[in-house]
Amino acid sequence: MPITYEHIKTCKQTGARLGRVHTPHGSFDTPMFMPVGTLATVKTMSPEELEEMGAKIILSNTYHLWLRPGEDIVEEAGGLHKFMNWDGAILTDSGGFQVFSLSDLRDIEEQGVHFRNHISGEKLFLSPEKAIQIQNSLGSDIMMAFDECPPYPASHDYMKASVERTSRWAERCLAAHKRPEEQGLFGIVQGGEYEELRRQSARDLTSLDFSGYAVGGLSVGEPKDVMNKVLEFTTPLLPTNKPRYLMGVGSPDSLIDGAIRGIDMFDCVLPTRVARNGTCMTSNGRLVVRNAKYARDFGPLDENCGCHVCRNYSRAYIRHLIKANETFGFRLTTYHNLYFLLELMMQVREAIKEDRLGDFREEFFEQYGFNKPNAKNF
Amino acid sequence: MPITYEHIKTCKQTGARLGRVHTPHGSFDTPMFMPVGTLATVKTMSPEELEEMGAKIILSNTYHLWLRPGEDIVEEAGGLHKFMNWDGAILTDSGGFQVFSLSDLRDIEEQGVHFRNHISGEKLFLSPEKAIQIQNSLGSDIMMAFDECPPYPASHDYMKASVERTSRWAERCLAAHKRPEEQGLFGIVQGGEYEELRRQSARDLTSLDFSGYAVGGLSVGEPKDVMNKVLEFTTPLLPTNKPRYLMGVGSPDSLIDGAIRGIDMFDCVLPTRVARNGTCMTSNGRLVVRNAKYARDFGPLDENCGCHVCRNYSRAYIRHLIKANETFGFRLTTYHNLYFLLELMMQVREAIKEDRLGDFREEFFEQYGFNKPNAKNF
Ligand SMILES: [Zn+2]
Ligand SMILES: [Zn+2]
Repeated sequence: MPITYEHIKTCKQTGARLGRVHTPHGSFDTPMFMPVGTLATVKTMSPEELEEMGAKIILSNTYHLWLRPGEDIVEEAGGLHKFMNWDGAILTDSGGFQVFSLSDLRDIEEQGVHFRNHISGEKLFLSPEKAIQIQNSLGSDIMMAFDECPPYPASHDYMKASVERTSRWAERCLAAHKRPEEQGLFGIVQGGEYEELRRQSARDLTSLDFSGYAVGGLSVGEPKDVMNKVLEFTTPLLPTNKPRYLMGVGSPDSLIDGAIRGIDMFDCVLPTRVARNGTCMTSNGRLVVRNAKYARDFGPLDENCGCHVCRNYSRAYIRHLIKANETFGFRLTTYHNLYFLLELMMQVREAIKEDRLGDFREEFFEQYGFNKPNAKNF
Repeated sequence: MPITYEHIKTCKQTGARLGRVHTPHGSFDTPMFMPVGTLATVKTMSPEELEEMGAKIILSNTYHLWLRPGEDIVEEAGGLHKFMNWDGAILTDSGGFQVFSLSDLRDIEEQGVHFRNHISGEKLFLSPEKAIQIQNSLGSDIMMAFDECPPYPASHDYMKASVERTSRWAERCLAAHKRPEEQGLFGIVQGGEYEELRRQSARDLTSLDFSGYAVGGLSVGEPKDVMNKVLEFTTPLLPTNKPRYLMGVGSPDSLIDGAIRGIDMFDCVLPTRVARNGTCMTSNGRLVVRNAKYARDFGPLDENCGCHVCRNYSRAYIRHLIKANETFGFRLTTYHNLYFLLELMMQVREAIKEDRLGDFREEFFEQYGFNKPNAKNF
């Protein structure tokens, strides 16, 4: 198996898992956050910077790479690692989420989904077999099964039919996988808020031999307590000897709360997207460095952060760059935000090791401001 | 004197000078090209990358920093070096060029120039005293005198009056300079195409004790042979024991031709500006990496280039990034182009050392394509 999970320890205070995932491109400790590199680049960052900040695995998007530059070009380059000069691990999603979220014009049938290219309007068709073929061409370490991503909220009947189709598609994904010695394939448990459907989905998927399991259909607009509740009844349904991945989650509170509910891997565009708007995550909460009050603030973005940016650049300088729309400003905020989340995951792993993740959560939430009335989302 | 010039050797074949300029922030060998960092950042680059590629001195723009973030903020940060985390040398221009080129509404009088802020439309006034005060606040290693930048072409009468005003302004700049122990100040020789006026300007300015001399009013739209001719009769008028700087020149042919005519320092936005349009300078000439023909070209931008980009990334990948408007693509083309010019200057210095800069010119022009009919400008 190209992907294996090594369990190291369970936090006595919370049940969170400390572990290690082994891939053909190195190992990483879990719980882990994966920066998103949609188009074979984590926006504004270099591979060296990602390595320096401690990223061991990044996510890239099958749908986007299929359209640009085309998976055939990536394959001809020797695969995605070589194409983008990243020697760490890569996870690719299946394209399902983009097909269901970017395209207004789509037509779901048993065979797959007809839709229009969000750039050119051209008619396209994505199916379990096509999604796997593209990911086999990209050569990612971890591929994702092609699933239906239902809207939130969705009725029980809609969700049940969707879960069943996702299970049938999961089998077809496994059958279509041409490089099982080199690339792992994760199944995605769906079922929305419905415990019974999550159980059905987990049963279907764990009966198949996936390398790991994702919890899909969360972080799609539902309240945070719904997400937590769903995780509470879903992760216990997943095998303990394989990694568990919560898709699309990247706010500091949800990373901690996900780890507490047994999640090992997370990804989200949040830290990089808000960085390009001049918003930073700091140990004292969200900081909008564009604000006029930082014009003469010569302190670092986060006085408790040891990253390259906080050691060398001031809020005043970064504010100046962002206000002037200078690329280097976006580089600095992006670097810091990613470092902040990778560092947070390291603290989470330390806390698990010491059986105090519950205490860590309380301290972190208090200092970040999540306990305040009307706290911001991140 | 904060700025000194050490002459090492004159090329027997061409008369080009090999030298070294010493500044409070390190020394650099000449002839040298200076990357432009208009707003306290060389667009898309980090200071570490500039250092890695061999940049020893960069240029920053007084006019732009005066407006954003304001020289008082830079001064409060501890000066421009500290503000932008660049420990190498910095040259600042005087703002004159921007006032005369960016602003339609300007009113030149003996005291200075009234004009409107190109961003807000606010009324502003720049004078020799103000330009020096701003540069004293920025704390650059080399400051430039505030000169009038006449249009091209300009009549003899206009140019003569302008040269005389520039000389009077030069005296006022020297008198206004508050930090002569820490910052050098260069005078700017004007006079357009008129040999007699260049002689008058050079005589006026060299009678004053500047740390170095720039040749201004070139690269403003005149043909290349006019620039070369002007340099031929102007540089011999300048002292041999001080650095000579040709402003606004960055095409490979003009760098070589300037060095041959006794120039030591150059700056230009050309390599960084065209990089952001996906255009690269290579040993085989200009390469527009956006072009479809590079979609499956997995070779480097320049097979003869040893830069970090050419060692690790393909034309196909860079084309993909640029087409998708990804910042990392602009980082890669910018890095390569700057490296290319810095490497070119190193080759020029080697050729001077070996008394064969004329031969080097012929070989380089032939390989780059400058000898072809209708050769591109760079
Ligand atoms: Zn930081
Ligand atoms: Zn190169």
